Amino acid sequence: MVGGGPDSGIGETHRIAMRIDNKCELIAGAFSRSREKSLVVAKELRIAGERIYDNYRSMAAAESKREDKIDAVCVVTPTDHHYEVAKTFLEAGIHVICDKPLCVSLSEAKELLSLADKSGLIVCLTHNYTGYAMVRQAAKMVRNGDLGEIKAVHVEHASGWASKLQEDEKKNEPSWRMNPTRLGDASLLLDLGTHAHHLARFVTGLDVTQVVGELSTIVPGRAIKDNGHGLLRFENEARGTMWISMAAAGNEQGIRIRVYGDRGSLEWFHEDPFHLRFCSVNGPAQIFAQGTDCVSDEARRWTRGGLGHPEGYFEAFANLYSELADVIGAKGTGRDALGFPVALDGAKGLAFVEAFLRSYRSGGTWTNVEAIQ
Amino acid sequence: MVGGGPDSGIGETHRIAMRIDNKCELIAGAFSRSREKSLVVAKELRIAGERIYDNYRSMAAAESKREDKIDAVCVVTPTDHHYEVAKTFLEAGIHVICDKPLCVSLSEAKELLSLADKSGLIVCLTHNYTGYAMVRQAAKMVRNGDLGEIKAVHVEHASGWASKLQEDEKKNEPSWRMNPTRLGDASLLLDLGTHAHHLARFVTGLDVTQVVGELSTIVPGRAIKDNGHGLLRFENEARGTMWISMAAAGNEQGIRIRVYGDRGSLEWFHEDPFHLRFCSVNGPAQIFAQGTDCVSDEARRWTRGGLGHPEGYFEAFANLYSELADVIGAKGTGRDALGFPVALDGAKGLAFVEAFLRSYRSGGTWTNVEAIQ
Amino acid sequence: MVGGGPDSGIGETHRIAMRIDNKCELIAGAFSRSREKSLVVAKELRIAGERIYDNYRSMAAAESKREDKIDAVCVVTPTDHHYEVAKTFLEAGIHVICDKPLCVSLSEAKELLSLADKSGLIVCLTHNYTGYAMVRQAAKMVRNGDLGEIKAVHVEHASGWASKLQEDEKKNEPSWRMNPTRLGDASLLLDLGTHAHHLARFVTGLDVTQVVGELSTIVPGRAIKDNGHGLLRFENEARGTMWISMAAAGNEQGIRIRVYGDRGSLEWFHEDPFHLRFCSVNGPAQIFAQGTDCVSDEARRWTRGGLGHPEGYFEAFANLYSELADVIGAKGTGRDALGFPVALDGAKGLAFVEAFLRSYRSGGTWTNVEAIQ
Amino acid sequence: MVGGGPDSGIGETHRIAMRIDNKCELIAGAFSRSREKSLVVAKELRIAGERIYDNYRSMAAAESKREDKIDAVCVVTPTDHHYEVAKTFLEAGIHVICDKPLCVSLSEAKELLSLADKSGLIVCLTHNYTGYAMVRQAAKMVRNGDLGEIKAVHVEHASGWASKLQEDEKKNEPSWRMNPTRLGDASLLLDLGTHAHHLARFVTGLDVTQVVGELSTIVPGRAIKDNGHGLLRFENEARGTMWISMAAAGNEQGIRIRVYGDRGSLEWFHEDPFHLRFCSVNGPAQIFAQGTDCVSDEARRWTRGGLGHPEGYFEAFANLYSELADVIGAKGTGRDALGFPVALDGAKGLAFVEAFLRSYRSGGTWTNVEAIQ
Repeated sequence: MVGGGPDSGIGETHRIAMRIDNKCELIAGAFSRSREKSLVVAKELRIAGERIYDNYRSMAAAESKREDKIDAVCVVTPTDHHYEVAKTFLEAGIHVICDKPLCVSLSEAKELLSLADKSGLIVCLTHNYTGYAMVRQAAKMVRNGDLGEIKAVHVEHASGWASKLQEDEKKNEPSWRMNPTRLGDASLLLDLGTHAHHLARFVTGLDVTQVVGELSTIVPGRAIKDNGHGLLRFENEARGTMWISMAAAGNEQGIRIRVYGDRGSLEWFHEDPFHLRFCSVNGPAQIFAQGTDCVSDEARRWTRGGLGHPEGYFEAFANLYSELADVIGAKGTGRDALGFPVALDGAKGLAFVEAFLRSYRSGGTWTNVEAIQ
Repeated sequence: MVGGGPDSGIGETHRIAMRIDNKCELIAGAFSRSREKSLVVAKELRIAGERIYDNYRSMAAAESKREDKIDAVCVVTPTDHHYEVAKTFLEAGIHVICDKPLCVSLSEAKELLSLADKSGLIVCLTHNYTGYAMVRQAAKMVRNGDLGEIKAVHVEHASGWASKLQEDEKKNEPSWRMNPTRLGDASLLLDLGTHAHHLARFVTGLDVTQVVGELSTIVPGRAIKDNGHGLLRFENEARGTMWISMAAAGNEQGIRIRVYGDRGSLEWFHEDPFHLRFCSVNGPAQIFAQGTDCVSDEARRWTRGGLGHPEGYFEAFANLYSELADVIGAKGTGRDALGFPVALDGAKGLAFVEAFLRSYRSGGTWTNVEAIQ
Repeated sequence: MVGGGPDSGIGETHRIAMRIDNKCELIAGAFSRSREKSLVVAKELRIAGERIYDNYRSMAAAESKREDKIDAVCVVTPTDHHYEVAKTFLEAGIHVICDKPLCVSLSEAKELLSLADKSGLIVCLTHNYTGYAMVRQAAKMVRNGDLGEIKAVHVEHASGWASKLQEDEKKNEPSWRMNPTRLGDASLLLDLGTHAHHLARFVTGLDVTQVVGELSTIVPGRAIKDNGHGLLRFENEARGTMWISMAAAGNEQGIRIRVYGDRGSLEWFHEDPFHLRFCSVNGPAQIFAQGTDCVSDEARRWTRGGLGHPEGYFEAFANLYSELADVIGAKGTGRDALGFPVALDGAKGLAFVEAFLRSYRSGGTWTNVEAIQ
Repeated sequence: MVGGGPDSGIGETHRIAMRIDNKCELIAGAFSRSREKSLVVAKELRIAGERIYDNYRSMAAAESKREDKIDAVCVVTPTDHHYEVAKTFLEAGIHVICDKPLCVSLSEAKELLSLADKSGLIVCLTHNYTGYAMVRQAAKMVRNGDLGEIKAVHVEHASGWASKLQEDEKKNEPSWRMNPTRLGDASLLLDLGTHAHHLARFVTGLDVTQVVGELSTIVPGRAIKDNGHGLLRFENEARGTMWISMAAAGNEQGIRIRVYGDRGSLEWFHEDPFHLRFCSVNGPAQIFAQGTDCVSDEARRWTRGGLGHPEGYFEAFANLYSELADVIGAKGTGRDALGFPVALDGAKGLAFVEAFLRSYRSGGTWTNVEAIQ
């Protein structure tokens, strides 16, 4: 693991996800630039000191030479370091698990995609919300044709986590997410926009081809854009909207997707992640529950407990790790894996982010999203 | 009443709304072009035959001369006849209650607005969804400042009523709503878009100043647009989205508004119209219920039953009639009435419809909504 | 109408219910013991002074002699006067609409039942909650066998309306509902217990045969029991529970019924009265919405608006009046009417109330409910 | 771990719970009576073969002599073996984590309680549903006095897991839960009744002192009781009801608790476990969400993710293990631990089960629950 030091929330999330199904073991790390901090984490995790590295470069170099080397590295640094870390490990012949987004520009993303393709190495991108069993059920029902032809898609990742000015913003020392000179106006799109974009693609199986983008700032005193709306066009002519926000007062994570076809519709909402609402044109509405007999085999495979035992955020995350471990164990590659997002998805995400920004900056016109293959 | 013959749903709706609070009496009508059909309705309603007219012109002419003339006429004809009927009665010195939308073009709307202003007569426009007590509560909370400055607005009227091809469409004899040569692509905007636009304005107290419009057709074989998405900008720089549809499979009426400010947010959903969700940035979420002690005086005034006795569609409609009767009884005018939408609201609605269409037809660019005063 | 003076909520509720469908006209009344107050109501309702009576006796006497006499009287006095008023009008040959409960003792109820049977007159008892379309849908699904054999029933009428000490209680002048010397400990059972009992019988089609009753007082300082729990046995060996309360803090009306069979279950909750949840053993859960194509003909018949237009408390009440008007218009009798509760239902309710009280007073043992035929 | 072989669901659940927070390591086991099966599990878990035992007796004997002995044993056998296994390990000086219920009779329970008290060893009983953060929040709010004096409690564990005849029942080879000669009519009470009883005690802080019990069978052909209803009296004179079922068609786990005091009420429902509804007599209702600023410190301490990241069944289970590890690490004892249920809670559960059965068998009368100290 690179990143994930003592104060990192996302590092611990990845570690919990690894442990849940016991298919992955964390055996080496460069958790922090401070060796001292790294060792604090190592001790907690019972990792031998010799596998703790001062930085990702020495880790890649050393691990790639060991006989008992790591199968994959987990990258949980701030977003703007993903590219260099991922690239270094891919070049060292090590699979990469990368927290989303893949990187901060489409050109970086294309390079990583190309490296992954050439090397046959896996880049697993943890768009964890598509790890929920009922999101799998949704994707399955769309592919089954239960909704008919998809016509309208509404996707939201409108979180309330930053609906008040953060402590670091008040002190004029904004953290990387809020810093206008680090990710700038792209921050929201990189952080939440790529989640929303991936969720829409994953459930519908359709790429977004055009976008009108709009950004604004909700919280007074904030230096970056914390709110965005988009109009979407999909490859099959379906239309849609996107709402992303970090400042939606009173929201929890606010991830919601609603898909309407000419035969039916479905809705999944992250505040109730183990149910899925489906309604055909003929009604009545149906509520599918995780773990019941009426969900698809795939959704059942991603469920540990039986009927009515809710699984949450960590299990959704663990589902990605579980799939990844199976693929690596079977010596497969990630290019065509259905089970988890890969570099291709990451590159499509960056193409979307850049198109959205271009549209916004050009005054809000329909803008093409670059096709990635 | 003009229109509202034996097969009219909306006519009976208005009549129920009149009766609920017993402040209005229906005493004259031109319910149908067929006198026979008109008399069927008259008999049911115990209206004297001498007050049944062959058409709206004769009705306006005759009634305006009677000493016991009607106070107001209720116009429930197809939308494209509203203008001529409303104009005729205004010119005859009679108040007008008009089902929405006011008419089919902004120029017609301006003319009616001008007539109303000059004459001092009331034009009450029955945007009935703003008649719900909890929509009043929402509007009150926004004005109280409970949400802080309004920053994002999401409004939807995405109904499933026409998510299958209608009988008349199959026969190539589409009714006026579905007929490409009557209202055409504006039909959806006139029918549902004006509702959504009014709801957003009513709750936030803000006018929409710019729009990006997008239209599409969900149901195969349909000759008109049955689905639309918009991006909105409001006068105070708030942003928003609109979704309107008559073909959202599995939806009921699908009217929902969510308003986010920098201090809190609220959500009202027509499938549960007697509750309102509010959440401040400090939480927890609060659910206000119609008829409880914690709602505003205004919301309580629009409630007949006590705690926990749900009121619905007809009571919301009746609230508008009740307000109107009070205003007419008090010899007030409708221009400044807070209690019900008036010609000014109708004209603003038409300005929005035309801007949305212009935006769509010009390829989806930000388009100014004409300001109406 | 007898009762329903200027301060009466329930009187106005009945009057709204009459007006909604325009099948009933209110033409005479003894609204109050004070003629002055009666005339206030009469004026509002445009009722001729000659049809306003000083008391129910003179009204029954005078009306029964008129050629244009009332078809039916509506009794909305305090509960402990229902018996004498209903009896008087039945003896005068006039149909009776009686607010629930029918009366305050089983012996009174039997007498009224006997009078109704002998005379062929209708006693329509306004257990209004069974007037909701989706309660009709529930009853229909049970009778269709969608739930299999009924095995468990949970019914609640746990309102929060009196969860604080009322003004009159504080002054030691409790109103009739709270007065220990008027209805006493039976008050809650008469007021809300009969509603819950009727709802359970109506939906399941099963009589309650045995009960264990328990009563308590929630609000400090209250002189009567304001809370009750019961265990139920039904005629087919199904089991169940009942919760009734006037002091369930934070509840609205709190009317809920859940029925479980060996093939499926359903739930209806009065805070969302136009939806019904059904789930078969094979799932998924289904949500039936009022006004959609998938509800039964009977539920559709009790619906005025189209898809997604919520109807509420007043429409449910109006449904009973509408049925009654049809029956009277067709010169039918109320004994076998399916459309509204009758004297037989009232008598069964009183038998239940008395069994519940006997069980409670005897220390909480299984107690037989007298069978009424 | 004793039990938890290859087919055991509950064994894997405990193991996931141990891993999530990484405070416990599973290092020895007697997973099955078949050594072969035990070794299958051991291999998956990377446990050395020397720590795999043929049965719990040899495990207790061997482990108690090792210097690196286990701190605690986890007992996940069928319920009727809990007593002998727990007793053996307590006598060997090893802490016990026991899946619920503690054992199958009050006399066994008292013996284990006495052993625990004398030895100072911990018996942690995994009533996992009280491990949810929002159940902690509920308990905290009750103790804060937010509800005033508790007056009515409704608790349910009405699962649908066995709403169809199970495969083994059809073959006349019922598993231990369904076997009339193993746990018999007590099975449902032991399995789900103890959960409901503990949840009610945990949230309210009140013991149940009297019960009326009723049992029945929903699924045709089943040899045991699969459904039960109870009336409850609590030590402070609060009243309540209990519903337990394994055959509630269409339910998920069906765990719900509603508590009403004279100042407010709360509701927690396991199908939405990271929200808690609270309503004071003054309203409006409030929805507390896990991970927000407005929940108590204790509820926050039991939450891993931030705002709006749902935690579920496994995290609730893990919370108990986390607390236990802290107590054992700190050399505390379990007698007074607030963080997890202990032998005393288990004994109170058995006292309740036996009282419920006595009440049912004596025809349904109020029956005292033996007080345990």
